[in-house]
Amino acid sequence: MLGSYRIRTDLAVEAREHFKEENVEVRGVEVNESYDEEKDIRTTVVKITTENGAKAMGRPQGSYITIEAPNLSVPDEDYHREVSREIARHLRQLIDLETEKSILVVGLGNQAITADSLGPHVVENLHMTRHIIREYGLKGMGEEKMHRTSGIVPGVMAQTGMETSEIVEGVVSVTKPDVVIAIDALAARSTRRLNRTIQITDTGINPGSGVGNHRIGLTQDNLQVKVIGIGVPTVVDAATIVHDSMAHLLDALDEGEQKEFLEEMISPHLHSMFVTPKDVDETVKYLSFTISEGLNMAFAQV
Amino acid sequence: MLGSYRIRTDLAVEAREHFKEENVEVRGVEVNESYDEEKDIRTTVVKITTENGAKAMGRPQGSYITIEAPNLSVPDEDYHREVSREIARHLRQLIDLETEKSILVVGLGNQAITADSLGPHVVENLHMTRHIIREYGLKGMGEEKMHRTSGIVPGVMAQTGMETSEIVEGVVSVTKPDVVIAIDALAARSTRRLNRTIQITDTGINPGSGVGNHRIGLTQDNLQVKVIGIGVPTVVDAATIVHDSMAHLLDALDEGEQKEFLEEMISPHLHSMFVTPKDVDETVKYLSFTISEGLNMAFAQV
Amino acid sequence: MLGSYRIRTDLAVEAREHFKEENVEVRGVEVNESYDEEKDIRTTVVKITTENGAKAMGRPQGSYITIEAPNLSVPDEDYHREVSREIARHLRQLIDLETEKSILVVGLGNQAITADSLGPHVVENLHMTRHIIREYGLKGMGEEKMHRTSGIVPGVMAQTGMETSEIVEGVVSVTKPDVVIAIDALAARSTRRLNRTIQITDTGINPGSGVGNHRIGLTQDNLQVKVIGIGVPTVVDAATIVHDSMAHLLDALDEGEQKEFLEEMISPHLHSMFVTPKDVDETVKYLSFTISEGLNMAFAQV
Amino acid sequence: MLGSYRIRTDLAVEAREHFKEENVEVRGVEVNESYDEEKDIRTTVVKITTENGAKAMGRPQGSYITIEAPNLSVPDEDYHREVSREIARHLRQLIDLETEKSILVVGLGNQAITADSLGPHVVENLHMTRHIIREYGLKGMGEEKMHRTSGIVPGVMAQTGMETSEIVEGVVSVTKPDVVIAIDALAARSTRRLNRTIQITDTGINPGSGVGNHRIGLTQDNLQVKVIGIGVPTVVDAATIVHDSMAHLLDALDEGEQKEFLEEMISPHLHSMFVTPKDVDETVKYLSFTISEGLNMAFAQV
Repeated sequence: MLGSYRIRTDLAVEAREHFKEENVEVRGVEVNESYDEEKDIRTTVVKITTENGAKAMGRPQGSYITIEAPNLSVPDEDYHREVSREIARHLRQLIDLETEKSILVVGLGNQAITADSLGPHVVENLHMTRHIIREYGLKGMGEEKMHRTSGIVPGVMAQTGMETSEIVEGVVSVTKPDVVIAIDALAARSTRRLNRTIQITDTGINPGSGVGNHRIGLTQDNLQVKVIGIGVPTVVDAATIVHDSMAHLLDALDEGEQKEFLEEMISPHLHSMFVTPKDVDETVKYLSFTISEGLNMAFAQV
Repeated sequence: MLGSYRIRTDLAVEAREHFKEENVEVRGVEVNESYDEEKDIRTTVVKITTENGAKAMGRPQGSYITIEAPNLSVPDEDYHREVSREIARHLRQLIDLETEKSILVVGLGNQAITADSLGPHVVENLHMTRHIIREYGLKGMGEEKMHRTSGIVPGVMAQTGMETSEIVEGVVSVTKPDVVIAIDALAARSTRRLNRTIQITDTGINPGSGVGNHRIGLTQDNLQVKVIGIGVPTVVDAATIVHDSMAHLLDALDEGEQKEFLEEMISPHLHSMFVTPKDVDETVKYLSFTISEGLNMAFAQV
Repeated sequence: MLGSYRIRTDLAVEAREHFKEENVEVRGVEVNESYDEEKDIRTTVVKITTENGAKAMGRPQGSYITIEAPNLSVPDEDYHREVSREIARHLRQLIDLETEKSILVVGLGNQAITADSLGPHVVENLHMTRHIIREYGLKGMGEEKMHRTSGIVPGVMAQTGMETSEIVEGVVSVTKPDVVIAIDALAARSTRRLNRTIQITDTGINPGSGVGNHRIGLTQDNLQVKVIGIGVPTVVDAATIVHDSMAHLLDALDEGEQKEFLEEMISPHLHSMFVTPKDVDETVKYLSFTISEGLNMAFAQV
Repeated sequence: MLGSYRIRTDLAVEAREHFKEENVEVRGVEVNESYDEEKDIRTTVVKITTENGAKAMGRPQGSYITIEAPNLSVPDEDYHREVSREIARHLRQLIDLETEKSILVVGLGNQAITADSLGPHVVENLHMTRHIIREYGLKGMGEEKMHRTSGIVPGVMAQTGMETSEIVEGVVSVTKPDVVIAIDALAARSTRRLNRTIQITDTGINPGSGVGNHRIGLTQDNLQVKVIGIGVPTVVDAATIVHDSMAHLLDALDEGEQKEFLEEMISPHLHSMFVTPKDVDETVKYLSFTISEGLNMAFAQV
C-alpha cells in the first residue's frame, strides 16, 4: 500500500518490514534474526542475493546487518562495551584480517549540525596507526600484528565545493587502503529506531543515504576498493512523519485519492526539513564513542 | 476550532493569527503592521494590554515586536545590516538609554545542538565593555557615552544541574545590570516562519519558551530587573507538523472525534522531537551575527 | 638567589623547591612525600601552618597536595583510572561527605585557547545530579546516597565583561552549595612539570593563579563557602623560560648586575606570552577526562 | 654570527634581516620595500633568483611577499578590509586570472590547537563556488565571470594517520584545480612579528614550515600544480626565545664557547614547545577572517 508515495529510509530492515506487513515474501532476499535476551541486543541480517531482490528492496545486492540495542542512548558503559564488541565481531567477518591490513575510515556528514555529526565524531575518537607503523614498523606500536588505520573527515559539499566522493577517491588513490569504512548518520522511517539501531553493510554508502543526501555515494564501483558502510539513524524526514501519522486515515481512500491528498497536504517545505530528538547531542556523543570503540577493538589485534 | 488540542508556538504573531483566521477580534490585544517594501521587511507589533487579552493569547501582557525578513537566511551583508538596524531601533525604544546604562545579555540554549545554539552564538559575537569601563572609565573605550555590556552563556540544566534562572538570578544580584536581554531559539507553529522571523518582547522569556523548554523563565518578576527577550524560531515541534498537515482532514470531524483521532495518531514520541531545516547550521550562523550586530549598534553610542 | 626577580609558579611544590635548593628550612611549612613505586605516582603534601610560612611561600595557609604522574600525557586507560582514584581519595579527605552534600564545580579558563581549556572540559564530562535529585529525590538516581553535583563554565573577562568571581559569587548565593571545587589550568616554573602534575588545595584559587591570571580569585573569604582548587600546569611563562635558562650565567654576577641584566634582556613582550607543548590538545583531553572521572568517583557514592 | 646554531623562522623577511644586520649583500636575492603611511602597511618583496641565493637564504627560489600591519590584532573592520584588499591585489598578480580559473584552498594545521588553527578557520569562512558552477553554470552564481573555489581541511598526521601531502595530492589528482593556495600558521623568530605579519609566496609550503612541522610540504614539485602559500606567524619556538635573549651575552664568547654554551643551556624539552601570545584566540579569529575576505575578494570577480 501507499506504494505510489516514496518513503525514504536508509535501513534495509525497514524496507523489508514493508513487505512483511503485507505478508509478501520477496525472492532474492534472505532474512535471519537473532536475539540475545541477556544483553537485550537484536541482530537482523538481510541478504539481498539477486537483481530482482535488489529492485524490490530499492538497494544493491549485499549484506545488511542491523543491531538493535534499546539502551544505546543511555550512558551505561558496560552495555555500550557489549555493543562495541558486537560491531567488532561483524567487522571481522566482513573483512579478511589476514590479507586486508590497511583501513581508511571516512567520517561522513556535517560537523556543524549535531544530528549529522556522527561520522566526524567517530573518526575523532579512533586510534590512528598507519603513520606510526609506516615510520617505525609494528614495533613502534609495541605489537606483532596490527592493522594500519587512517581516517578522514571530508566535510560536506557546501563547505568544500567538492563531492565527498571526489575527496575520498583522491585519498584512496594515493594511500591505497585495502578497505574503506564509511560512517554516516542515516534517515530512518520510524522515530522508534532513532539512536538505537546500527546498520553495517558491505555495499558501502549509496546515493541518497545519510542526513546530508550524498549524490554519488561511496561504493566499490566508484572507489575500486571494498567499502563497508556503518550507519546510525539519527533523523526522520519531516514528510515521513506526517505521512506515517496519516496512514490509517489514508487507508480509507482509494489510491488516486491518496495521491491527491498527499501532494496537497505534505508541504514541499517539509522535504528540506528533518525530525530529530531533543537529546540528539548526548546520543550522538555516546553512539560515536561506541562505534569508534568497536573499530578500535576490531583492528587492535588480529 | 481545534482549540482542545494545545499547539505550541513561542510567537505572539502566530497566536494572534489563530483568531484572525476565525475572524474573532480579541479585546485587550492591539495589532499594528507595517511593511517596508524597499527593504522587504515586515514589522508587526502586538500589544496585550489587559488580563483578558493575556488569557486569550496565552502569554503575559506586554509588547511583542515581530520582524519578518524573508532573506534572513541568505548571506547578503547589506540586507543583514538593515535588519540589525531595525533590531537596534526597537531596542532603543524599549530601553531608556539615558538612565538604563548597563546591560546583561544572556545567551540561552544548548551550544551542543545546532538548532538551539542561537543564544550562545550571539553572546560570542558581542563587544563586552563593562570590565573596561569599570577599570578605565569611558576614556578606556575612547568614547564619551557608551553602555556597559556584559554577557553570559549559562548552559542548559542537563549540563549544569541548575535551572538557568538560578544562574541568571545570581549573576544579576551581584552585577546589578539595569536591563537583561535574553536571546533564545524559539519554536514556531509554521515551518514558513523558521529562520526568517525575529521576535522582540518586553515580557522576557516565559516558561515553555525556547527549544529547550525552560521551566521557570526569565522575567522582571523573578529577576527584579527589566527583561527583554529576543528570539528566532529555529524549530517546529514534531507533533505540530503532523497536526497542521491534518487540519483539513479534521475539519470534517466533530470535536469529540477530532480529539480521539489526535490522541491516537500523534505518537507520544513526537513530543520529544523537533523539526528543523537541513541548513540550520548556516542560518543560525547568519542570524546570530545579525542580532549581535543589532545589539552592538544599539549600545555603542547613545 | 635570584630572589629579587619574581618567578611565577602556581605550584606550592615548586615554591618549596626554591628553599630546598638553598638548604633553608622554612618555619611554618611541613612537607610529606610518598612514592608508590608500582603505580609510579609521587604524592607531596605541603602544609603551610603559620602566617610566617605563608609569607615565605607567597601563598595562603592551607594544604597543597601534588600528585606527580609521569604517564599522565600517555593514553593508558588503566593508569589514568589509578590517578582518578587518587584524586577521589584526596577529595574525600578534604570534604566531609556526611555533612557536605552539595558540590558546585567551576570550570575556569578560556575554552577558546587549548592550553587554558582544562576547566571547561572537566565540567563537560561531569555527571550532574543536582537537578535530578531536586526533582525526583535520590530514587531518581537509583541510589540511596549520592551527592548533588552542579557545574558552571563562567568564561573569561574578555568574553563576559565580568570578573569570574562575580559570576561564581552570584551562583553560589542562589544555589547554596556546601563546597565549591574550582578547576583551572596553571602556570608552572619548570617545563618538566607540564601536563604530569595535579595540585589539589583547600585554599581555593588565588589571585594570579591560572593561565588567564584571575585578578580576584575564588576563596572561602570571598565566596563564604569552602573552596577546593584543582589545577594542572599546562603552560610556563615565556619570561620564566628565559630566566631559568640563564640562571647559571647569572650566578657569576652580583645582585645588582643580575637585576640590570634581567631587566634589559627579558623583553616586556614576553610577559604577555606563554610556552606550551606542541601536543597540548591531547594532554588536555586526557587530563580533563582523568580529573572528571576522579570527581565522578568521589561523589557517586558515599 | 651565531651561524652555527640553527634558528628556525618561516619568514623570508627574517632570514634576510640576518644578513642585513651584518651588512652582507647576498647575490641572487632582491629586496623591495614600500610603506603606505596612511594605511600603516609595510610591504616587503624578497625575490630569490638563483640557486646561490636559495642556499644562503635556506629556502627555495621564488617570491616572498610580506605584509606587515601593526594593527592586525585589533578589531578595526576598516583596517582589516584594507589588508584584505592588499592580499587580494597580490594574489591577482601571482595568479593568471584569465587562464587559471579553479582554485583549491587548503587549510593546514590542527584545529584543536588555537595557535595552529588559522588554516582551518580561513577555509571555514570562504565562499565555495565550484559545486554550484559545475551544477548550474555561472548563472547559478548570478555572475558572468567567477572563479571556481573549493577548499579542504586535511587535519594533521596524528589525527589522520596520513601525511597532509598525501591527502592534498589525492584531492588535486581528482579535482584538478589550476592553483592550490595553502594557508598555514607559521613560526617566526621574533615575537614582535607575531599576529601582525602575512607572508604570501609562490613557492608553496616547504618542509619544516608551520607550527605543526609538515615533513613533506606542498609544492609544485610534489603536487604538479602551482602552489601559493599564505602564512601568518602565530608562534615562536621556545628554544629561539631563549637563544635570542642571550644573544648579547654570547657576543662576548668565541664560537666554540658559544656552541658549548647553547647545547648545555637550551633544554631539549624546549624543542617540543612553542611560545604564543595570551590573546591568540582573538588574533587568530581576526586574522583568519581578514585572509578569507582577501581570498573572497580576489576570486569573486575577474
